[in-house]
Amino acid sequence: MSTSDLPVVTAFDWVPEFARGLVRDLRVRWAFEEIGAPYASELLSARAPRPDDYVARQPFEQVPAFRDGALKMFETGAILLYLGEKDARLLPADPQARWTAISWLFAALNSVEPVIGRIVAYDVFNADKDWAPPAREAALGLCKQKLKRVADALAGRDWLAGEFSIADIMMVTVLNGLRHTDLVAEFPALAAYKARAEDRPAYKRALAAQFADFRDEPAAQGA
Amino acid sequence: MSTSDLPVVTAFDWVPEFARGLVRDLRVRWAFEEIGAPYASELLSARAPRPDDYVARQPFEQVPAFRDGALKMFETGAILLYLGEKDARLLPADPQARWTAISWLFAALNSVEPVIGRIVAYDVFNADKDWAPPAREAALGLCKQKLKRVADALAGRDWLAGEFSIADIMMVTVLNGLRHTDLVAEFPALAAYKARAEDRPAYKRALAAQFADFRDEPAAQGA
Repeated sequence: MSTSDLPVVTAFDWVPEFARGLVRDLRVRWAFEEIGAPYASELLSARAPRPDDYVARQPFEQVPAFRDGALKMFETGAILLYLGEKDARLLPADPQARWTAISWLFAALNSVEPVIGRIVAYDVFNADKDWAPPAREAALGLCKQKLKRVADALAGRDWLAGEFSIADIMMVTVLNGLRHTDLVAEFPALAAYKARAEDRPAYKRALAAQFADFRDEPAAQGA
Repeated sequence: MSTSDLPVVTAFDWVPEFARGLVRDLRVRWAFEEIGAPYASELLSARAPRPDDYVARQPFEQVPAFRDGALKMFETGAILLYLGEKDARLLPADPQARWTAISWLFAALNSVEPVIGRIVAYDVFNADKDWAPPAREAALGLCKQKLKRVADALAGRDWLAGEFSIADIMMVTVLNGLRHTDLVAEFPALAAYKARAEDRPAYKRALAAQFADFRDEPAAQGA
């Protein structure tokens, strides 16, 4: 297979320190690493406007967009589902386990990530605003409730759908949005789950691959 | 088929006026109505604790949970995908159209709904807080950007994946979270899209079915 035949995921050639390991191409890289399948990254500049044709590949001009041959898609949920349908190591074949994994895939993106996104919005992007602390306080209870429910669901099992799946790739990378806080550590089962996932060689390879695509620049080195 | 063999979606037997037409079982009902397939609703009280066994069906104790025979799942994204896989009127069979629809299904839930959820959190659930107006102002630009991108993506087509699909059921019900504002109306293509979807007989039947399950109570009639 020549490089030009490989599935392609878009990524950034540089991001600030606080975003390294959080850019969402990591989720797709991780899935590829779990099954040992090759892929290519196509790098974009985070600080320049996207190429004119990029909006046709990703309507919100975000990273990642994905293509496999002529087939194009976007949203990490869709890309992970696509890869999962090709390999039972990512998405179990048993019908109940499959739909449990898919349920948790959506839960990570729609029941957990939105409230984590609010915490990040207040802590990171609006940290200097007077209104951010009370807004954070109002979201914090909901955030902890969601984290507790995920922790509870992990009782007696290592992974959300029993065996490791795309649900875990998604949930763990979603939880990582809180790495600037101690919130996950408040739920030992959740912290253990996250550590278990991040200890997988495939995760480490994916993270290294994302970092390897970042060009060193003075602005980054000084951060 | 006896009633006990039907797929079951959980719903509420009463919600306040502001939530009627927004509770998420509507999405599942709409999908069933599009294909003319029967289903049963199982009603819960929104004002009482969930039954003890409900957390095993929906880890966040929300509505809806779903089962089809012995197969159980949760999250409206997963349920719509499950129904879509059974019927091309909900999810096109052509690979590119299928993955475009699935990409937009996830986009509605993860790129659009979270910022709409922030607007709703500020306008509805924290309307009396001093910090809510500046927090809303900080989210408003992002919200409008997302709405504009969806409107742009609809240029030259009636539905997100070309033909009507679960992506449209999801996006239109997500957009409806803004019905207390004029934000969708700021984007005529988006407003026309939403009106086109809500003019479908299946949508109207689904909405009527959700309302028919609400018991009239004095507290509701006075709202």
